[in-house]
Amino acid sequence: MNLTRAQRAQLALALEVCATPTPGNVDRHREYPDLRFEHFLAGAIGAHDGLELAAEHGPDATGIGRAFEHAVEGMSQQEGGNTQFGALLLLVPLVRSAAKGSLSPDGATAVINTTTSGDAAEFYRAFDHVNVSVKSPPENLEDLDVRLGADAIPAVKERGLTLKAVMKHAVDRDGIAREWINGFERTFEAADRIENKGGTVPDRTAKTFLELLAAEPDPFVAIQHDEATAQETSERAAAALAGEIDPSTLGESFVSEGINPGTTADLIAGGLYVALEGGVSV
Amino acid sequence: MNLTRAQRAQLALALEVCATPTPGNVDRHREYPDLRFEHFLAGAIGAHDGLELAAEHGPDATGIGRAFEHAVEGMSQQEGGNTQFGALLLLVPLVRSAAKGSLSPDGATAVINTTTSGDAAEFYRAFDHVNVSVKSPPENLEDLDVRLGADAIPAVKERGLTLKAVMKHAVDRDGIAREWINGFERTFEAADRIENKGGTVPDRTAKTFLELLAAEPDPFVAIQHDEATAQETSERAAAALAGEIDPSTLGESFVSEGINPGTTADLIAGGLYVALEGGVSV
Repeated sequence: MNLTRAQRAQLALALEVCATPTPGNVDRHREYPDLRFEHFLAGAIGAHDGLELAAEHGPDATGIGRAFEHAVEGMSQQEGGNTQFGALLLLVPLVRSAAKGSLSPDGATAVINTTTSGDAAEFYRAFDHVNVSVKSPPENLEDLDVRLGADAIPAVKERGLTLKAVMKHAVDRDGIAREWINGFERTFEAADRIENKGGTVPDRTAKTFLELLAAEPDPFVAIQHDEATAQETSERAAAALAGEIDPSTLGESFVSEGINPGTTADLIAGGLYVALEGGVSV
Repeated sequence: MNLTRAQRAQLALALEVCATPTPGNVDRHREYPDLRFEHFLAGAIGAHDGLELAAEHGPDATGIGRAFEHAVEGMSQQEGGNTQFGALLLLVPLVRSAAKGSLSPDGATAVINTTTSGDAAEFYRAFDHVNVSVKSPPENLEDLDVRLGADAIPAVKERGLTLKAVMKHAVDRDGIAREWINGFERTFEAADRIENKGGTVPDRTAKTFLELLAAEPDPFVAIQHDEATAQETSERAAAALAGEIDPSTLGESFVSEGINPGTTADLIAGGLYVALEGGVSV
């Protein structure tokens, strides 16, 4: 016996929030008054059934849009709100590609390429379960605003958009959409970094978090603040990596400033899943 | 939608280890070098399928011995060893009684009363998945030593013992066996205490942990040390409750002394499950 693929994805979610410090994000040692550690644990546990759907394969498998929507519904059975929406949006196609025996940039892209407008509709439905902070779409795409939830489905169907096409429209403003379109490049990079370090998995993960954040501004910080803040956040992460700031102190600062590099956390969760499938264990 | 019963039991396991400080036990802020926080999270996630079996009901439901053995197998898919054996031994009959619509001391006892020698055999098999620290049985019961694992099954069958009867033999030396025989008295007391406090669920849980530990010596501490140490541990917990010692400081002391009130943690996990079924939410 071993953990199932769905359970490995759940463990990835749990390990991401267990790793500390992940400055600005909820972790073992830091939380926000209304978004607490236990909300993430409940989110990871509740996502099980949707992740099980993602782990199906073969011609009769449930679409990944529906698997995602169901995982989000399960995740949202706690009072913290959106805990792992972005992480699940990475995990679902990764789990499916693993189930198909090809957990790789090409394998994940092959899964993305099979998405339909039915998957897109389910994706929109997922936004009805939880409030997600996203950037507004450009004016010509206002009818596709994900914040419309299921109300956008007629426009999605009229335009005949697959879920991949929906993501392509968001690639410039959303870090998860970028992963979908770019072969999950940063997710697999996170996995490599986690696999190749020493120490406990949470310690390796925390280090990798800082490395990813230092390397590229977090799109979620840009949404909640602005591009300049996101850029500065990365520079401060780089300073922590260089030993110029204590990462825990940086965490306190980010929390008090409301700087929450959530996309980087999502990439870490995806990377942890890939690493767990690759043989990393706790 | 809502969490399933199995997921609520998993959440109970996760919340128990999330609550801090629970002096002497692994929690968010304290762990042992080889028994770490992430092992408990992996244990909670891995226990899913066995807990799903426990949540069956009706005449064709899987026996609770088998549900327990399967939950333990899943729990043990991590490198920390025994994380939640005792907690699962409480949770499995509680989940079954909840599934039967009667989560109460009487309902749980009714479940216990239906156990067979087949359940007892599966219980012994569970010990093959993980090393569990237990007291040696008296001389006339040496062939029933749980540490024999499946090798004890012939003796169990020869004596025609149900799982309840096996527990009855251990009632004087094991705190979980005592719960099985005494209508889960302390488990339901833990639930009441968690339900009736204010604050976050982890905070209520940590307080309840100290209360339970102060009220009765922990049998697991007695096994790992002796009765006097267990008694003294309770007195120190009482002092922490009274504000004479900081509970976190007490936690550091217990960890450095290797005092690990594991049975109290198990009771808390059971109590959390009952509280979650009763409407407590995170």
